[in-house]
Amino acid sequence: PDVQLSRDTRNIPIGKVGVKDISYPIVVMDKNRSFQSTVARINMYVDLPHHFKGTHMSRFVEILNTYREKIALDKMETILAKMKEKLGASSAHLEMEFPYFIEKTAPVSGAKSLMEYTCTFSATLSDHFDFVLGVKVPVTSLCPCSRELSAYGAHNQRSIMTVQVRYNEFLWIEDLIECIEACGSSPVYSLLKREDEKFVTERAYENPRFVEDMVRDATVRLLAMDNISWFSVEAENFESIHKHSAYAAIERSKNI
Amino acid sequence: PDVQLSRDTRNIPIGKVGVKDISYPIVVMDKNRSFQSTVARINMYVDLPHHFKGTHMSRFVEILNTYREKIALDKMETILAKMKEKLGASSAHLEMEFPYFIEKTAPVSGAKSLMEYTCTFSATLSDHFDFVLGVKVPVTSLCPCSRELSAYGAHNQRSIMTVQVRYNEFLWIEDLIECIEACGSSPVYSLLKREDEKFVTERAYENPRFVEDMVRDATVRLLAMDNISWFSVEAENFESIHKHSAYAAIERSKNI
Amino acid sequence: PDVQLSRDTRNIPIGKVGVKDISYPIVVMDKNRSFQSTVARINMYVDLPHHFKGTHMSRFVEILNTYREKIALDKMETILAKMKEKLGASSAHLEMEFPYFIEKTAPVSGAKSLMEYTCTFSATLSDHFDFVLGVKVPVTSLCPCSRELSAYGAHNQRSIMTVQVRYNEFLWIEDLIECIEACGSSPVYSLLKREDEKFVTERAYENPRFVEDMVRDATVRLLAMDNISWFSVEAENFESIHKHSAYAAIERSKNI
Amino acid sequence: PDVQLSRDTRNIPIGKVGVKDISYPIVVMDKNRSFQSTVARINMYVDLPHHFKGTHMSRFVEILNTYREKIALDKMETILAKMKEKLGASSAHLEMEFPYFIEKTAPVSGAKSLMEYTCTFSATLSDHFDFVLGVKVPVTSLCPCSRELSAYGAHNQRSIMTVQVRYNEFLWIEDLIECIEACGSSPVYSLLKREDEKFVTERAYENPRFVEDMVRDATVRLLAMDNISWFSVEAENFESIHKHSAYAAIERSKNI
Repeated sequence: PDVQLSRDTRNIPIGKVGVKDISYPIVVMDKNRSFQSTVARINMYVDLPHHFKGTHMSRFVEILNTYREKIALDKMETILAKMKEKLGASSAHLEMEFPYFIEKTAPVSGAKSLMEYTCTFSATLSDHFDFVLGVKVPVTSLCPCSRELSAYGAHNQRSIMTVQVRYNEFLWIEDLIECIEACGSSPVYSLLKREDEKFVTERAYENPRFVEDMVRDATVRLLAMDNISWFSVEAENFESIHKHSAYAAIERSKNI
Repeated sequence: PDVQLSRDTRNIPIGKVGVKDISYPIVVMDKNRSFQSTVARINMYVDLPHHFKGTHMSRFVEILNTYREKIALDKMETILAKMKEKLGASSAHLEMEFPYFIEKTAPVSGAKSLMEYTCTFSATLSDHFDFVLGVKVPVTSLCPCSRELSAYGAHNQRSIMTVQVRYNEFLWIEDLIECIEACGSSPVYSLLKREDEKFVTERAYENPRFVEDMVRDATVRLLAMDNISWFSVEAENFESIHKHSAYAAIERSKNI
Repeated sequence: PDVQLSRDTRNIPIGKVGVKDISYPIVVMDKNRSFQSTVARINMYVDLPHHFKGTHMSRFVEILNTYREKIALDKMETILAKMKEKLGASSAHLEMEFPYFIEKTAPVSGAKSLMEYTCTFSATLSDHFDFVLGVKVPVTSLCPCSRELSAYGAHNQRSIMTVQVRYNEFLWIEDLIECIEACGSSPVYSLLKREDEKFVTERAYENPRFVEDMVRDATVRLLAMDNISWFSVEAENFESIHKHSAYAAIERSKNI
Repeated sequence: PDVQLSRDTRNIPIGKVGVKDISYPIVVMDKNRSFQSTVARINMYVDLPHHFKGTHMSRFVEILNTYREKIALDKMETILAKMKEKLGASSAHLEMEFPYFIEKTAPVSGAKSLMEYTCTFSATLSDHFDFVLGVKVPVTSLCPCSRELSAYGAHNQRSIMTVQVRYNEFLWIEDLIECIEACGSSPVYSLLKREDEKFVTERAYENPRFVEDMVRDATVRLLAMDNISWFSVEAENFESIHKHSAYAAIERSKNI
């Protein structure tokens, strides 16, 4: 007797049911090296009609296994279609979070190093396919008010900008990161030599940015990217003079 | 010169700007002991019109200080009104997460102990006041399929049910927790004696519940509570036979 | 039949066995307000002789309940003695981590606000009583190298200094925090007005500190406190120009 | 002027100074597939003599870059030697934490799936080389007391066993995991079909284990592995009938 297939009489459909927090190796397309191996934390859900008692949890993992080492961006829709088929569902959801590495070049010395960005894929297939690409981008922010008030110096700190976008044509994660890194007082790096540290310090001092400026600059840039149809952008400054954060967020839909 | 008040020309209003992750002692009304002291993690945001360069971050903290030791549920709307006034905003948001303790009685021995539930308040004041009460409720879940298949035993595990509600009249956190705790295979406790452990083990075996059953049972109960106008309920089972979770979620608006 | 009391034949004593991650309201002595209510995450362990199969987990929670609302610093040894007695153990361990609030005064405006510090108690009673007090202290750090190299500005960031001490006479958490806050480029605050922000920015610029300086300055100060017999101090800078941290640590036993 | 090389007069050597929480892609040897790509969180520290003001933080990252895609287990000592050389230190520390995947076979159906284990490398080079291998192994635990007391069923839950070992000859992570997985009531899996779920449920019921049993069984097994010279083992049960954990720990040095 398949308990999951038995009839449920409560008359309540379920919006999302599935597996959560599976860790899995994946391969992601990479603008410079063609692809990179990383490790994702994955959630997979489908809807469940009111008359079925339960879904079949093991099938989600079987689908992951089928696409093992091919769980790249261009397979999202295929995987979701397989989920709908194997689980008899009308909608399917696939969420992934993973570290993604980009080689960055220090601004003066040209020293190269890898920096990690946390990326998210959030995909849904019901009648149509919906995909949201997200990335967390660390930047330096230097406070305009502190600079204006003070005889010398200005408080600055690490900030995390979180951007999520819907887009029409293909979009490289690298290009989205580059767009957002330009919105702080300076990008951050894994490796800086003395001449770079001087450059980055002075650049940040020359480009003071409130948390408000950062999300506004991002908005200007994201509005200018024709390929993007919707976005949300957040900035969180881990204030060097406080124990709490400063925060700002903007969300926009472009009616293209 | 007040940098924040200077004119911004990008023509971009900001949806939310403010302070995030402030830790603060608060007092919450308690059904049995009149009130309890706890510690909250707090976010406070307002909107910012397009023409102002920045908000005044220190005013958020000043408002918290004004209501120090009185930051209870019945002060949410007052605090939000003060935020709108002091920051010249048209909308204000206040989010709080805190541990809340309830004295529970073991089912057979009657032994009493405190158990912690993580609660959230999420309040917004724009033209009208919106308030969402949330609570995370740990329960035991025992798998119906495992019980059906096996000659003896059944896998079970700790689950967390997360419920969020909008309501019309006052609602005790205790009553919401009681509603949700009834939806697993058994409630959990901080203190169980031998006779209680026997009782809880047998009760869970007698009440097998899929993650799907848990959110459906919660839906039936929340639909029956006239006071509640909207809810979302999630269940996550930290599966004892897997390293990942089973998950289900339902959201419903009641058109009252 | 009490399974826990049955004889174990593997001949293996257990160093620590008990309950972990219990959340519980506690009361802590406070230098300025006499006491404060907060919420702790608590671990309680005892040793187990080789011949017993198991300990009695429910007794740990019963002991917590007995001392409810009196789980203060001066009760540590009493609670540990009760643990040894009730569980027939030769050693007992009690670990607590909790947020602790201090009212700070802004350096120019005199504005007052609460700031949270994460504190830890780590107590053991075997033949003798051992107690380690710990506290995490956020400070600002401003990089001496960046200041030296740059025409203007200097990168700075939030840092967390973690100190743990053993001491002879009573020691206020407040005094330990004050000692450590003096070791960064500036203390941090919850509430700063414009005149305070100017002061804090300039003070940090005048007091550049490497992560190495911070743990050395703390070492000088802790060595000078006769009451302290052992300490460890760590500093972690959440670098504003990197995604990773700079870190330094020193541990010292004073042979008094 | 190299600020870091300037003379420090406080006369305080520093035990550990360096970089913390760098995320980096690494390659680890794999018993079945020769190697696997994963992502590590890395800390790198050296000691600093009393007369130097600071270490050179960028050199740590340069060393990581040099060994990029070759940061495997057999390179630990080489990397540490390079750290000592490049930083003029007498001791060097390298800590890494990363997800590691093993293909597991379901016990009845033979279905294969990947499961993740969190591994740690902790290596030090001073006069001699010291290496500690660690791994977190999830298992099922079923309570002997609950089974004994109850007419039917027994509470069970996911547990995490954390083992750390020093060893003489090479040791496969896979073999250490296999040793520890045998100590719970049952191993856990990513993919179980119906016949497997029956098998695992019944096997757990047939093998009840207290948290005390788990660390004792691990101790018996680790003592029997001649290659291992020191170990610590912890078990934490995320109790299905409580909100807190049961915990036990044993540490042993073998005087070989």
